[in-house]
Order: sequence, then structure tokens, then C-alpha cells
Amino acid sequence: MKDMFSKAISCLAGGLLLATITMAQPRPTPAQLAWQRAELGVVFHYDLHVFDGKKYTQGGNRITPVPDYNIFHPASLDTDQWLQAAKDAGARFAILTVTHETGFALYQSDVNPFCLKAVKWRDGKGDIVADFVASCRKFGIAPGLYIGIRWNAFMGVHDFKVQGDSSRFRSARQAYYNRMCQGMVKELCTRYGPLFEIWFDGGASDPADGAPDVLPVVEKHQPGALFYWNGQRSDARWGGSETGTVGYPCWSSFPYPSMLTARYPRIAENKFELAKHGDKEGKYWLPAMADAPLRGYNGRHEWFWEPGDEHSIYPLADLLAMYEQSVGRNATLILGVTPDTAGLVPEADARCLREFGNAVKERYAHPVTNVQGAGRTLEAAIRPARHINQVMISEDISAGERILSFVVEVKTTGGWRQVYSGTAIGNKHIASFPAVNARAVRLRVTEARGEPNITVFQTYFIQQ
Amino acid sequence: MKDMFSKAISCLAGGLLLATITMAQPRPTPAQLAWQRAELGVVFHYDLHVFDGKKYTQGGNRITPVPDYNIFHPASLDTDQWLQAAKDAGARFAILTVTHETGFALYQSDVNPFCLKAVKWRDGKGDIVADFVASCRKFGIAPGLYIGIRWNAFMGVHDFKVQGDSSRFRSARQAYYNRMCQGMVKELCTRYGPLFEIWFDGGASDPADGAPDVLPVVEKHQPGALFYWNGQRSDARWGGSETGTVGYPCWSSFPYPSMLTARYPRIAENKFELAKHGDKEGKYWLPAMADAPLRGYNGRHEWFWEPGDEHSIYPLADLLAMYEQSVGRNATLILGVTPDTAGLVPEADARCLREFGNAVKERYAHPVTNVQGAGRTLEAAIRPARHINQVMISEDISAGERILSFVVEVKTTGGWRQVYSGTAIGNKHIASFPAVNARAVRLRVTEARGEPNITVFQTYFIQQ
Repeated sequence: MKDMFSKAISCLAGGLLLATITMAQPRPTPAQLAWQRAELGVVFHYDLHVFDGKKYTQGGNRITPVPDYNIFHPASLDTDQWLQAAKDAGARFAILTVTHETGFALYQSDVNPFCLKAVKWRDGKGDIVADFVASCRKFGIAPGLYIGIRWNAFMGVHDFKVQGDSSRFRSARQAYYNRMCQGMVKELCTRYGPLFEIWFDGGASDPADGAPDVLPVVEKHQPGALFYWNGQRSDARWGGSETGTVGYPCWSSFPYPSMLTARYPRIAENKFELAKHGDKEGKYWLPAMADAPLRGYNGRHEWFWEPGDEHSIYPLADLLAMYEQSVGRNATLILGVTPDTAGLVPEADARCLREFGNAVKERYAHPVTNVQGAGRTLEAAIRPARHINQVMISEDISAGERILSFVVEVKTTGGWRQVYSGTAIGNKHIASFPAVNARAVRLRVTEARGEPNITVFQTYFIQQ
Repeated sequence: MKDMFSKAISCLAGGLLLATITMAQPRPTPAQLAWQRAELGVVFHYDLHVFDGKKYTQGGNRITPVPDYNIFHPASLDTDQWLQAAKDAGARFAILTVTHETGFALYQSDVNPFCLKAVKWRDGKGDIVADFVASCRKFGIAPGLYIGIRWNAFMGVHDFKVQGDSSRFRSARQAYYNRMCQGMVKELCTRYGPLFEIWFDGGASDPADGAPDVLPVVEKHQPGALFYWNGQRSDARWGGSETGTVGYPCWSSFPYPSMLTARYPRIAENKFELAKHGDKEGKYWLPAMADAPLRGYNGRHEWFWEPGDEHSIYPLADLLAMYEQSVGRNATLILGVTPDTAGLVPEADARCLREFGNAVKERYAHPVTNVQGAGRTLEAAIRPARHINQVMISEDISAGERILSFVVEVKTTGGWRQVYSGTAIGNKHIASFPAVNARAVRLRVTEARGEPNITVFQTYFIQQ
């Protein structure tokens, strides 16, 4: 009783404190909210070197232009097939690498000559961004674009910097390059309708450091897009690895407004622990992205298609574990998918995505219990008693992350006992525990900032 | 008598020596012979910055890319009109700057994206090289192409060198750039039929110094073209100024096989005296080019069209003087012509070229005397006596420059007297002297290597 009393007091105190705390508590913008609720996306990596028959080396491609850009000739390109694969995986958004480190742009740019205008493919009239976006709309998947400006092997740009011995020479070309990047961003933000996310590869640095000034362009023309990221703004953060997982807890709040490691070297410390976990006390809302290439298994880690890499497609079990450790930890999972030289997602990859999507759908289609509501406690009876071993919880994050700690308790023949305790919930939390025969299950929020609004509290029995 | 005797002896000695000397004496290749006999050409300079509304500054354009290449939009482009202007001037060949220092290429390149494929003009399908060559063939003017690879503001190439801080980065891009240049040369040498001249802007340096290896490409695909120039070969030499004139004498022979000033700094000494005069004893046949922009008068010197520069078009009298000091001194004159933003040679320039062509034709249409033949002396009677004040002499240079010195003598009522003495003749020598009433005129070769073959010995009375 004493415990319960003191808890009630602390709850009351928490409630009194609430008005002050929530003023400072970070919350998502509509774009962030949509991105977090989307939970799963795919990113299609496509670039010249897919066609060169060589093993992709990121470091090399950054500094060595592809000798003949007319190797780019995806004779059977079909973005509908790409998006069908994304849809099958359960992705709610899809991203295309418009430019990556070669500098080659997959559309009809009027500011970057090194684009699909330059090649013989489709008589120089191809526009893969247009195709991609049209297919996204057709399949009801939100389109996003990934723009690489940090490296450009063709233009000789290395880590945002135009190379040059004479300062006048260098500064004139840097200004040109920056204008070119801004121009591409404008084209991409104005030609293809609303975009879900605009992803700058490795960030877009900061105009204060001499980098292209891209933020005003996005803010003007795509105010609804998730902006990821530059030194001025970062609507999401990298989750600290390319394994498709984040740590636990993984708070959406973060102590810095941007990922810019040059200014905030702490982010890289301790193997990116801060990126993996976020910061419960952080003043900024930067939800985590967990990204991984689908071909990241078996000693490989490849964002681009390469011959003979089918063995590196993650097995289904690994993908399901990845899902639990990303989406199930309040991160948005983005899987890298690799269209091949024909211009298609290879059948093996498409099959894997389909199986993954079906497995997730199937796994969470039949909850043992399913309740929701505001407040600190939610309980669901199970009659007759059944085994459960997994819980899925979501809170309404539109007002921020309110739940700071919680327990899951199960009523067995021996009474209530705790089977799981956690901290962050956020958009979604999935947790497993040893199977237990339950007559009821309850969620008790043990610490919160304000009244929690639990939109999902479901339990499952997952066959392992 | 003693003098005449000793001269005969010396001639005899010269004759005996001839067999040895002519073995070493340089002679033109067929391409050089055609180029020298063509005497007059034009070069059309055309590039992005014509359209930028700013005064052209060569130094600036080398290091500052034109901000928006879609300013290139010559709505009324008509290369027939260009070639009509060239024809009217009496040009026998015409050259187009395919690339200049911005790096922008005026054709449909498959190796250089920064070309007419990139622009909106003609829906990215324009090919000014193709148009130009077609117009040349139509007007019976031999087409040549000027290719700038020394500077490329877009790619960041400065004096042949790709810029870069890290040697691996720089060397990879340099290799790419070199391949790109070689690829452009191959495209230009294989797509447009036989070319009269291929002119590398500022030379093409030398593969031994890390520059693109262009000579084998030209030798393979355009064996009949005049190659101007790189460190390995130079079929002509720059005449030492951009005034459209050379010095006198101006020998076609030269002590070095190439203009490459990095290796032969002597060329630049004494205000390019060696380039202006050549070297009578030189072992290599490098005839001189005299080049000048038509808009080089009145304190201006502009190879490209710019607004409000009509006042800088050379007056006819200056062009005629230029003609005498270039074509009339054994050099090939190349006049720079400036198509404007509409894509036309401005009417003022076209009129000037027409007047110049007509004036040259008219001036040399009515010789007072006209004889030719092999040997050391040529004489022509003038009955009745008439005034003359100019002589035009050509020797057959296919066997080299045989005439080393000569005099022109006139028979007046007071007997023979010398009115002019000179050294080099070569393809054409025009010289003026005070008007004299002549009953006969003779050319006496006073020093020669082998038997001179005088193909033109004409005298004129030019109204000054």
C-alpha cells in the first residue's frame, strides 16, 4: 500500500509538473509524425557503377569517375515493378537516389549536364525520377528523393569541397557547384509534386561552412517533406549503424538540432551510442532512422546491385529480427533495394521483400489482446487463458513521448506478475518475453510526462 | 665582270652542294601545302559566354563557369550565313571552336555531358559542328575544328591540369579528363568527314607531361588534316602575335618540331621573334599562322561577340595591310569572326568581310606583268611603259623554300635599277616600293638552295 501511495503521490506531482514540462517537450512536426507512423520505407540505390561489372567500392567511386557513362542502359527499366516490390514489403514510402557519389543524376536536369540527358539510353530523354514518382503514386506509396551532393567524382567534389589549387579558381567553381546543387534541389522540389522525404546523402553540411544553401529551397517548395539533413535542420537522425537496428531505448528526442558531426563530435563517440539511443532529456525531436541494405548478409553490405550477390540477401528471420529492433524500437526502418542492370529489382530480392511483408502482416494480424486508451493503466482480459510472448505498444507521439517507463504484467493462475519492463515506447514498441499462459495482461506506465495516450496495446503469441 | 664570274662560280658551287642540302631541307606535307596555299581562313568563336551580356574576359572565363548554360539559345542560328560571310571574304577554309575555355561543346558528345545535349535549345538535339561542316561543304570551304582542352572551367581544369588536393583523387580525375578529351577528339575526327585542320587551343601539351594523348587519334582518323599542335607534332606555328601579321622574313622552316614553349622557351624570347620570323636554317617545316580577331581595332581585341563592339571591326585599309603582312609574307591568315546571340554573323562584320574579299580580288585581278617559270631570273617586258609599285611572287614550296634572297629590278629610261630586295618568298610574297615607270621588270634570285620554281611573278600598280 505504501508503494502504491507513494506512486500516486509521484503521479500527482508529475501531473502538477506537467504544464511546465510539456511547454519545453519536443514534439514532431506533421512531416516527422507521418514519417514515424509510416514505419517502413525502402530506398532504391541506382547509379552508373551498377553497370560497370565491378564490385562497388564507395571510397573509390567517390574519387574515380566511371569511365564511360553510356554503360547506363537499363533496357527493361520498370519502376512499377520496383514499387510493387516495395508495396509487397509493406513499405509506406520509397526513396530514390537521384544522385549518389558519381554525381550522375537520374533525371532531366537543366543545371547538371551529367544526367540522363547525356546518355544514349532512351535517346537522352529518360527521367527515372518521373517514372519513380509516377509509380509511387500508382501504388499509393509516398515518394522521397535522396540527393547526394557531398561527393561528386565527375565534378571533382570531395566532402562538399571543390578541389583547386588557386583560391580564385576554387572559389569560383565552389560557387558554381553550390548553385548547381541548389538548382537541382529546386528542380526536384518543383517538378514531381509533393515529396515525403528529401534525404541528403551524408547530410548537406552547412552554408555557414561554404556548402550549398539547400534548406530555403526545400522549405519554400516542399514544406511538407521530411528534411534529412543539414547543419541547420534535421528532421530525423541516423540511428547509428547500417544494420537496420537501433538501440533500446531509442528516444525521438535528441540534444542537438542536427546531426552535423563536425559541430557535434559527441554523436560519433562510443560507436554512435547517442544516435542509437537518443536522449530522453533532449530538446529537439529527431526520430531515428534504422537503415540497412537488403543485401547486407553473409559478409556483404551492398547498397547497389552487383553481380553474384544474391547470397547476401538477408534471410527472412533476420529481417523479422531487424524489424523488431527498428520499427519495434521506435525507429523508422529503411531497407535498401537494388535495381539491376536490366532496370528491375531482381526476382530474388523481390521475393524476399514479398515474404518479409507477408510475414510481418501475418505475424501481427492476430493479436491475443487488443486495447487502447488514455491513462496510465490498460488492462485486457484473456478468456480462456492463452499463451502470449510478445507485446506491441504505441503511444500517440503527436504530443511528444510522454511515457518514460512502464511495465507489462500478466495475470496467471498465481496472480499478477511482471513479464517485461521498459522505458521508451514512442511510435511503436515491440518486445518479447518468455511465453506465459495469461488470463489477463496489463500495461502500467510507471513514469510519464503528462497523460499517456496509448493507441496500441496488443499482445501476441509468436511461434519462434 | 669579276662579280658576275664569282657569282657564277658560287651558283655552280651551290648547284654542286644542292644534292646534299636538299636531302636535309624540310618540305611541307600535303596537309601543310594545302593549308599554306589556302592562304586565308576564318575561325568562328562561339561559346556560352557570348550570351551572358558581360564583357568577355579570357582569364575569368577560364576559372569561372558560366552560371546558367541555358543562356545558350541562338534562336536564328544559320551556319550557311556564317559560311557565306567566309566565302565573301575569300576564305578557303573555316574553323569552329567546338570547345573553348568554358568547356562547353557545340555538338552531341557521348563523352562530354557539358555539350548541346545539356541545353534546352533545339530540345537538346542541336549539333553546331554538324551544321557548320555541312555549310562548309555547301560553300566549297574546307572545314576545320578548334578544340580547347587546356582550360575547362566546368570540369575544373587549369592549364591541362585537373585540380585536386589528394593525389589519388586528382590522378583519377586527370585520367578521366584525358580520356574524355581523347574521346571528344575521336568523335570529332570520325563523325564529320575529312577535316582540313584540327586546332588545339594553346596546343594540347604532351602525353609525356600527363596531357591527353590526342595525336594518335588524329593520325588514325584524320591523316589528311593539319595538326596544330601538341608537344609531339606541330604542322604549323603561331606567328608570334594576334595582330594578323608576321615579321619579314617569315620562313616556313623552324628549329624545333613543336611550339611547346615549356620545352622550348626560346620561342617566347624577344617578343616571339622566332615565331614571327622562323629560321632559314630550321630543320622542321612549321609554316606560320597569322591570326587576328576581325574585332581587333580601336582598343579592342575580341574573339567573341559582345554587345556594342561594332566599332572595333577593322577598317578595310587595315585589313588590306594585314593581308600584305601575313599572306604577303608567307603566312596563312586566319581572321576571327564572331557569331552573335541570334546565331548569325552580325551584318556589320559580314559587310566588312565582303568588302575585304572584294578588295583583295579586285586589287590582284589586273597585274601589269604576269610571268612564271623555273630558274634564277624571270623578266617581263612592259609595253608601253607603265607605273608599278607592287610585286607578288610565289615559289613552288612543295620542295621546300629554295629562294634565300632575291632582287626586283626595273628597266626605266635610265636602264635597270633595283627597286626591291628581299630574302624569303615561300608561298607568297607581296612587297611595295615607290611607284616607278617601268619598261620591263625582272626578278633575280641571288641565293637559292637548288633550282627555284617561280609560280607567280606579277607586278601591280596599286592606288594608295
